[in-house]
Amino acid sequence: MRAIAVLASGGDAPGMNACVRAVTRAALERDAVVWGVEDGFSGLVNQRIEQLTSRGVAGILQHGGCILGAGRCEPFFEARAREQSVTFLRERGVEGLVVIGGDGSLKGAQEVHKLGFPVVTVPGTIDNDMPGTDRSIGAYTAVDVAMEAIDRLRDTASAHHRAMIVEVMGRHSGYIAVMSGVASGAEMILTPERPIDLQGVFQEMAATELRGKRHFIIVLSEGAPWSGFELAQLINEADNPYEARYTTLGYVQRGGSPAALDRILATRMGVAAVDALWEGKSGVLVAWQQSHIVILPADQLSPRADPWSEQLDRAHEITTT
Amino acid sequence: MRAIAVLASGGDAPGMNACVRAVTRAALERDAVVWGVEDGFSGLVNQRIEQLTSRGVAGILQHGGCILGAGRCEPFFEARAREQSVTFLRERGVEGLVVIGGDGSLKGAQEVHKLGFPVVTVPGTIDNDMPGTDRSIGAYTAVDVAMEAIDRLRDTASAHHRAMIVEVMGRHSGYIAVMSGVASGAEMILTPERPIDLQGVFQEMAATELRGKRHFIIVLSEGAPWSGFELAQLINEADNPYEARYTTLGYVQRGGSPAALDRILATRMGVAAVDALWEGKSGVLVAWQQSHIVILPADQLSPRADPWSEQLDRAHEITTT
Amino acid sequence: MRAIAVLASGGDAPGMNACVRAVTRAALERDAVVWGVEDGFSGLVNQRIEQLTSRGVAGILQHGGCILGAGRCEPFFEARAREQSVTFLRERGVEGLVVIGGDGSLKGAQEVHKLGFPVVTVPGTIDNDMPGTDRSIGAYTAVDVAMEAIDRLRDTASAHHRAMIVEVMGRHSGYIAVMSGVASGAEMILTPERPIDLQGVFQEMAATELRGKRHFIIVLSEGAPWSGFELAQLINEADNPYEARYTTLGYVQRGGSPAALDRILATRMGVAAVDALWEGKSGVLVAWQQSHIVILPADQLSPRADPWSEQLDRAHEITTT
Amino acid sequence: MRAIAVLASGGDAPGMNACVRAVTRAALERDAVVWGVEDGFSGLVNQRIEQLTSRGVAGILQHGGCILGAGRCEPFFEARAREQSVTFLRERGVEGLVVIGGDGSLKGAQEVHKLGFPVVTVPGTIDNDMPGTDRSIGAYTAVDVAMEAIDRLRDTASAHHRAMIVEVMGRHSGYIAVMSGVASGAEMILTPERPIDLQGVFQEMAATELRGKRHFIIVLSEGAPWSGFELAQLINEADNPYEARYTTLGYVQRGGSPAALDRILATRMGVAAVDALWEGKSGVLVAWQQSHIVILPADQLSPRADPWSEQLDRAHEITTT
Repeated sequence: MRAIAVLASGGDAPGMNACVRAVTRAALERDAVVWGVEDGFSGLVNQRIEQLTSRGVAGILQHGGCILGAGRCEPFFEARAREQSVTFLRERGVEGLVVIGGDGSLKGAQEVHKLGFPVVTVPGTIDNDMPGTDRSIGAYTAVDVAMEAIDRLRDTASAHHRAMIVEVMGRHSGYIAVMSGVASGAEMILTPERPIDLQGVFQEMAATELRGKRHFIIVLSEGAPWSGFELAQLINEADNPYEARYTTLGYVQRGGSPAALDRILATRMGVAAVDALWEGKSGVLVAWQQSHIVILPADQLSPRADPWSEQLDRAHEITTT
Repeated sequence: MRAIAVLASGGDAPGMNACVRAVTRAALERDAVVWGVEDGFSGLVNQRIEQLTSRGVAGILQHGGCILGAGRCEPFFEARAREQSVTFLRERGVEGLVVIGGDGSLKGAQEVHKLGFPVVTVPGTIDNDMPGTDRSIGAYTAVDVAMEAIDRLRDTASAHHRAMIVEVMGRHSGYIAVMSGVASGAEMILTPERPIDLQGVFQEMAATELRGKRHFIIVLSEGAPWSGFELAQLINEADNPYEARYTTLGYVQRGGSPAALDRILATRMGVAAVDALWEGKSGVLVAWQQSHIVILPADQLSPRADPWSEQLDRAHEITTT
Repeated sequence: MRAIAVLASGGDAPGMNACVRAVTRAALERDAVVWGVEDGFSGLVNQRIEQLTSRGVAGILQHGGCILGAGRCEPFFEARAREQSVTFLRERGVEGLVVIGGDGSLKGAQEVHKLGFPVVTVPGTIDNDMPGTDRSIGAYTAVDVAMEAIDRLRDTASAHHRAMIVEVMGRHSGYIAVMSGVASGAEMILTPERPIDLQGVFQEMAATELRGKRHFIIVLSEGAPWSGFELAQLINEADNPYEARYTTLGYVQRGGSPAALDRILATRMGVAAVDALWEGKSGVLVAWQQSHIVILPADQLSPRADPWSEQLDRAHEITTT
Repeated sequence: MRAIAVLASGGDAPGMNACVRAVTRAALERDAVVWGVEDGFSGLVNQRIEQLTSRGVAGILQHGGCILGAGRCEPFFEARAREQSVTFLRERGVEGLVVIGGDGSLKGAQEVHKLGFPVVTVPGTIDNDMPGTDRSIGAYTAVDVAMEAIDRLRDTASAHHRAMIVEVMGRHSGYIAVMSGVASGAEMILTPERPIDLQGVFQEMAATELRGKRHFIIVLSEGAPWSGFELAQLINEADNPYEARYTTLGYVQRGGSPAALDRILATRMGVAAVDALWEGKSGVLVAWQQSHIVILPADQLSPRADPWSEQLDRAHEITTT
């Protein structure tokens, strides 16, 4: 290949820059030209690309966000926009595309692949909810950020005898909630995968108060049955031993300097994506399975397991008692 | 004095523990017994106190929250509860009280003083809105926490071409907003002290977009005319170049390990409070003015200046252009 | 079992407290009494133990160091001291022992096992150099700490056109160096596993200067052929394009709040250690292999792989060019 | 003025970038051209300057180091080099110079001033040892970094019953040592301003051990009578209750994202420096005195006070007991 392009799509995730850097330098090493596409698929539609150099990607490894921009692109759902995009890439001499993003981005990438244009997807989403891979770029960092916030919130919850509800990201996966909740010793973790009724929450609070704890931390995925606001109201309307407050971590989970493991994963996946393109692969996902990089056909991905393994669940139950 | 008591009241602030440690050790050095009152003035009403030792306050310097608990106390607003509290303290041999907290706590402390019981107040509130003192315990840390969050949010705002509204604490003072906003180079800072109309916000956004910026960060005090939610709606309903999102930092601003300057201020103020009691002072505030500790009569405090000094305002205006 | 004991031995590692908490609460859940042994095996020799309660281990999850103390114990190398230790434990009704530590600690634990006393070892060492397990408690945190330090050092190296040598821990393993070096984009990583001659270092520096970089970061394991001090001298005596400085990260790598993954690993391993004791196992290591907890006979452990996988090495080579 | 230049000289300090940004944008607001001089005074000697734009200084506020480079310049000590530098500036149409740096940089700046070229100095040095100003850019951050390191070191010192010596920067001033030592509750602080004999150190260690402390933290300025290495040896050779280890924080104190107060100070000082140039001032220092920016003649600066105020000293003595 003489030229490739790289884009980040969907929500940004810490480590995307490390991946852009790796893709760029791996392609340069093969003497190819590298184009960065601005703002995801919309940069293809609007024909906004810029050439990436080795110096141009220096010093971005440790930064959150994505220098290329990211985001969704409605027009790309239309066949004509996709065809024009591929034509645009071909006219510029581009012969392969790396897409960094989550589930929606993978769908967009596969549409490009179906048009006969070589494309490889790298999983980048803090939610860690993509099928086929044990880990997506950004998830480690999001867990660290959430854990540090919960550590802080426990200080203030303890000082005021409170139930503190912390709403973390994860519409379809409880990954961030489970990992940050176990890591911070949260008293309760509510996820889409493991629903619980309100009485269960109340009973657990009562039992915890009996054990003499001054706080009751609840980590709540976006995908849980209630929002933080709603759950706080429900707790405060009933007769519970702790007064509830809630905090929504929000966009801070996306930003900030990536954790070591995200930078390493992103670097390795970026190099693997370029390798895959040069090996003639297309319509594939670069995945992490049992501590190894693997290249999987993107149309046959199995769903990842519940973030709650049996061992982890038991460890949480025992140690927060 | 043979015995004193210490309590933290109102919202907790990082550094309160450092102050409790300093009060305890300064009183022990004078061979006095030290009692910690639980959960603010309500611990006086409910007679929940525990003896503090030098070892007992070891290792709390670097922790947020307050080991004594904090919080408001409705019953204390009644004269009878206050009289009973003072009687309780006297019966236990306590001869002086240190109160750590904000404006409301100072009022409670002054009521105790009026009953003839020696009491000294130390300013502890992240809002930094107390009259008489340039700095309250916790404010430095809150600014650091807010600034770090804004640094993170800029990454993700830039990746998505967004106006990101960050709501920080400060019902009556823009201190946290001004300091964290200048420190993070936020494009706009909205505070109770300096109202601005919506057209002003829109014009600034338009001008910023013209200069080619990919993000527009607005730091918003609680006390501003709109909430983060409302302002985001107003921006998105009008024809603006950035799509707005908002994040409420919330309780994370209160917690976490205190910044160096808060630990030092809290340590010095705690020692000064004990000194003041031994010098026979009561009804006074330990204050920080122009880099020195001073002891002020608490009933004659002048309001602090606007957090916006003229120089600072100009520096912000010029450097965010 | 009616009572067990737990000790931490060798150098402390962040996450040891999380493990002590998990061991304690898992044993309490089985209605056993839990004894904490002070300062490693020397607490057995000197008969210094204290009972651990659920409240007593509250709030230690997020702290570095080890509340029990750690450290080596010369006397324990003598058979008589070991026999007396076991007699002491039996007299107190203790029926099982959990040892948290590295290679040396495992040897001590196996000596106890050979005396017929049930003992289970949990790997805790920042060096991540224990056979049988992919990960030891503390290694993730050490990598994060080293990476953050290198991020800082790059700022100042760049400002001064310098070769900055960062000496990290790892006498027998390059794990910390490799992971933190790849994560921070260090130009060169020197480890015990992959020796390099001085000319190789110089050539790489010359090539890097040609590419226009303002800094040259070398991450150096303790176990590398030179110390940081020596390598800096060798670089400065020869004719090299960068002036070298060195920094030894030292003990800061051991301390501080554990990373999320260390807390989770430590929690799971602690529970698994108690499970193993109750299942009648002894002379075993709780290990982490391919994302699962396994229990291995401690006398048949295979050495872990080189921290340099082929993929990782290639990724580093390409992306730092 | 139609054009000015800005340079950073001596050791880099966190916040220098914030100052470069402020100088640039303040001069641009006055419609002047701004030149950045590379690598301090040597960039003047070697005629390496580049034009700075508003976009070019975007996003540098939160980064350590200095985008312009810094460092000392031997040739500038010669009169001829200085004259050529001024000629070079004049030929390029530059009419004023802002120098950011410490004592040595101020001397260089004054030499330029004596040649009739307008120059204003901004204090930037983590040591905080410049006469005339209460605070220099970078000092707040260095204190925070040192304090966080000491927090970490305490964990591991406690686990091993150790005296941990932490050597921090400050050849002529104990500022970093005093502030980080008080903030972290270090048992002893050794500075150039307040020498202590070895017997004093030993007595304090013995007394501390009697009080039951598991660690003894000594913060040591570079300018103290012994190095960390030497003091550890002296302690271990004598009969002391703690085994000593030492750590030299080194260059990490210089790097990393600047603290909020350093960013704000740097921003305000940068704007004030440009104002001073436009007001026709030269040979002056922008200083911080009692919470205000002042402009002082650089040849009549009084030495700053001992970092040990009496109050602070007493607070430290009492609270570490």
